[in-house]
Amino acid sequence: MQFNVDATCGKARACTITTAHSTIQTPIFMPVGTVGSVKALDMADMTELLDTQIILANTYHMYLRPGDETVAKMGGLHGYTTYPNSFLTDSGGFQAFSLSDISKPTESGIEFRSHIDGSKHFFTPEKVIDIQNNLNSDIMMILDDLVALPATQERIKTSIQRTTQWAQQSIDYHRYNQSKGIGINQNIFAIIQGGTDFNFRTQSAEELCAMDYDGFAIGGLSVGESNNLMYDTVEHTTPLMPADKPRYLMGVGTPEDLVENIERGVDMFDCVMPTRNARNGTLFTTFGKVNIKGAVYKYDAQPIDPDCQCYTCRRYSRAYLHHLFRSREITYFRLASLHNLHYYLWLVRQAREAIIAGQFIEFKKDFYARRQS
Amino acid sequence: MQFNVDATCGKARACTITTAHSTIQTPIFMPVGTVGSVKALDMADMTELLDTQIILANTYHMYLRPGDETVAKMGGLHGYTTYPNSFLTDSGGFQAFSLSDISKPTESGIEFRSHIDGSKHFFTPEKVIDIQNNLNSDIMMILDDLVALPATQERIKTSIQRTTQWAQQSIDYHRYNQSKGIGINQNIFAIIQGGTDFNFRTQSAEELCAMDYDGFAIGGLSVGESNNLMYDTVEHTTPLMPADKPRYLMGVGTPEDLVENIERGVDMFDCVMPTRNARNGTLFTTFGKVNIKGAVYKYDAQPIDPDCQCYTCRRYSRAYLHHLFRSREITYFRLASLHNLHYYLWLVRQAREAIIAGQFIEFKKDFYARRQS
Repeated sequence: MQFNVDATCGKARACTITTAHSTIQTPIFMPVGTVGSVKALDMADMTELLDTQIILANTYHMYLRPGDETVAKMGGLHGYTTYPNSFLTDSGGFQAFSLSDISKPTESGIEFRSHIDGSKHFFTPEKVIDIQNNLNSDIMMILDDLVALPATQERIKTSIQRTTQWAQQSIDYHRYNQSKGIGINQNIFAIIQGGTDFNFRTQSAEELCAMDYDGFAIGGLSVGESNNLMYDTVEHTTPLMPADKPRYLMGVGTPEDLVENIERGVDMFDCVMPTRNARNGTLFTTFGKVNIKGAVYKYDAQPIDPDCQCYTCRRYSRAYLHHLFRSREITYFRLASLHNLHYYLWLVRQAREAIIAGQFIEFKKDFYARRQS
Repeated sequence: MQFNVDATCGKARACTITTAHSTIQTPIFMPVGTVGSVKALDMADMTELLDTQIILANTYHMYLRPGDETVAKMGGLHGYTTYPNSFLTDSGGFQAFSLSDISKPTESGIEFRSHIDGSKHFFTPEKVIDIQNNLNSDIMMILDDLVALPATQERIKTSIQRTTQWAQQSIDYHRYNQSKGIGINQNIFAIIQGGTDFNFRTQSAEELCAMDYDGFAIGGLSVGESNNLMYDTVEHTTPLMPADKPRYLMGVGTPEDLVENIERGVDMFDCVMPTRNARNGTLFTTFGKVNIKGAVYKYDAQPIDPDCQCYTCRRYSRAYLHHLFRSREITYFRLASLHNLHYYLWLVRQAREAIIAGQFIEFKKDFYARRQS
C-alpha cells in the first residue's frame, strides 16, 4: 500500500491510498457489501454509477456462506463478485460477537455459533487472517476483543491486553505468511480499543501503533455512547496514531459524524446506515433527512434532493419513490440505496476538496447551515 | 394507433404498431409493471438495458394505490413513472376477480373488496375506462366477465353475453369520450372469452370483432387447462380475428407458449412468469431452465447462458448468482429479472426475424432442438 498525505487543514487530512486494485482518495466512505454484494445494488452500480474505489465485505458472513475457500476457488472477492477495485474485510469478530446467539471470548479467540445453522466455530487471530487471505481483500482487519458497553474497568482492561496480544500474534503471523508468499499484496490494520476511557485509548493506541501495521482503526465506538463522547474520544485518539498511515473509524455513521470526525483527522469510514436507512425510507440530503414514507410526498414532483446528481434524482420524483416505498416494491430499495450512497460519497469528496482548498471550516459551516434552512 | 403487417410466415405475423409514445415491432412480449414498476427493475432498466417499447401496468393496482387520480395529477403513467414508451393497462377485472376475497360479478359490473384495506369497490365497463383515461395508457383493455374453470355451460354462456354487452357499452363510451376530447390518443382492445369451448369462442369473436375496436385479445386462457387445449383454442380463434388489427394473448406464458402461439398468429403477449420465476430462482435460457438454487452451480464460473448478451450474463457467474440467491440478497432479484426479461425479448425478436426471413418453421425447430441438447 502506498500512502500519501496530499493536504491537511487543521487536523483534517486529504490523502491518497494506492492498493494493488485501486487508488483511493480520502476522506473516503466505504459502502458495506456484507455477503459480497452491497444490499440492493450490483457491482456495476458500484463502479459505473457510484464510482467507488473501495468497498467493505464482512469476513464473518463470507466465511459462513459461501465459505472463504469457495471464494478463493472462484478468484477471491474480486473474481467472485467482479468488483475490480479495493476490498476491505473486517475480522469477523464484531459479527461473531453481535450476530451469534452464543459468543464466548477466550484467551485465544472467540467461540460462536453460526446465525445461519447454529454450527459451532472458533475465530483466532490467525484463523481470521487465513480467511481473509482466502478472500484476498486489499485491507485486512485483525481480530480484537470487543466489550459490550457499559463494562467494568476490569473487563475493559482485559480487552485492551487481549487486543494487544492478538495484534502481536496477527502481525507476526501476517509478516511470516508474506515471507512465504501468502498475502503479499494484502495490507493489515490493527484496531485501537478502550471504549470512551481516554487512558485505555492511550494505552491501546501506544501499544498497537508501535507495531508494523499498514494502518490503524478506531474500533468500539458508535455503540450507543453520545455523539460528543464519540467525537471527544476520536479527538483524543487520532493524535496518538501515526501521521504517515491511514486512520479508519469503524462503523461510523451519520453525515454529521463523518464531517465531525474528518475534522478530527479520520481518513476512512464505513457504515450500513446509508443503505439500511434507505431501505427503511430515510433518505439523506444536503438539507437533512427526508422520510419518503410521509404523505407530504404523495404529489411531490421534485427529486429527493434538487441539488443531487445521482441516478435516482436525475430520473424519479419523490411522489413516485413514495409510491414504490408504500407498495413495498423491490425497485425502491435500489433507487433509494443509490441515492444515499451517492450522497455519502459526494459528501466526502466535497470534504476532500475543502481540505485541499484550505477551507474545511467554511465547508463545515455550510454543511450545517444548509441543514437548518 | 397505426398498424401494419410487415410480413407473414404461415399464420405467424411480424407487424408494426405505432402509438402516441412508441413504435412496437411484433411479435412482442410486454413485461408486467404491476404498480407502475416492473418488479426489482426501474424504468431506465426498461429503456436502456432491455430496450422495451411497451410494458403493462395493472389498472386494479394503480386504482387502489396510489389512485388513478393521483397518477393523472402527476402526468399519467408516463409522467409518474418516467417510462417514455407505450403502456398497456388491463381492465382490472382479472385482479378484482382473483385477488379480492369477495368478488361478485353482476349484470352491471364487478363488486370487490380491496386486497390492501378491505374497502368495497365496484368496477363497471365505464368506470374502468375512466380509470384508464386517468392513467393515460396507450392501450386500454375493457372489462370482461371472467369465469373460473371448470364452469357450467350456462355460466359460460352468461359470461359471453355479458362480455359482449359490456364491450358494446365500452366502445360506445370510449368513442363518445373521444368526441369530447378525452382519451384521444388512447386505443382500446376487446377481450374474446369462451373458455376452451370452440363454439363459445366463435360466438364471442364474431360479436366483438364486429365492433369498432383498435385490437382484440384472447382472454381466459392459461388458467389451468392443458397446453395443447390452449394452443388449439388459440388456433381456432385467431382466424376469427381481423387481420388488420393486433392480436393479444393475455397472461401467456412460457417460452414454448410464446413460440407456439406466435405460430398460430398471435402478436402480443404479457406474463409475470419471467420476473416471478426469476425471483424464485428459475432462469430461462436457450437450452431450457436453470434452477440457480442448485448446488451444482456453487463453483460454476459460466454466465447463466453463455449465448446470452444481457447485463447479467456479461458480468456475473452462476456461482455468484447462486450465492446471492442463497443469501436472499435483494441484488439477486434485479440481476435475475434482467436476464429473464432479456431472454423473452430476445426470443420474440428472433421470432420476428425468422418470420420476416420466411423461416419460422426452422426457427421453431431450432428453438426446440437447443432445449434437448
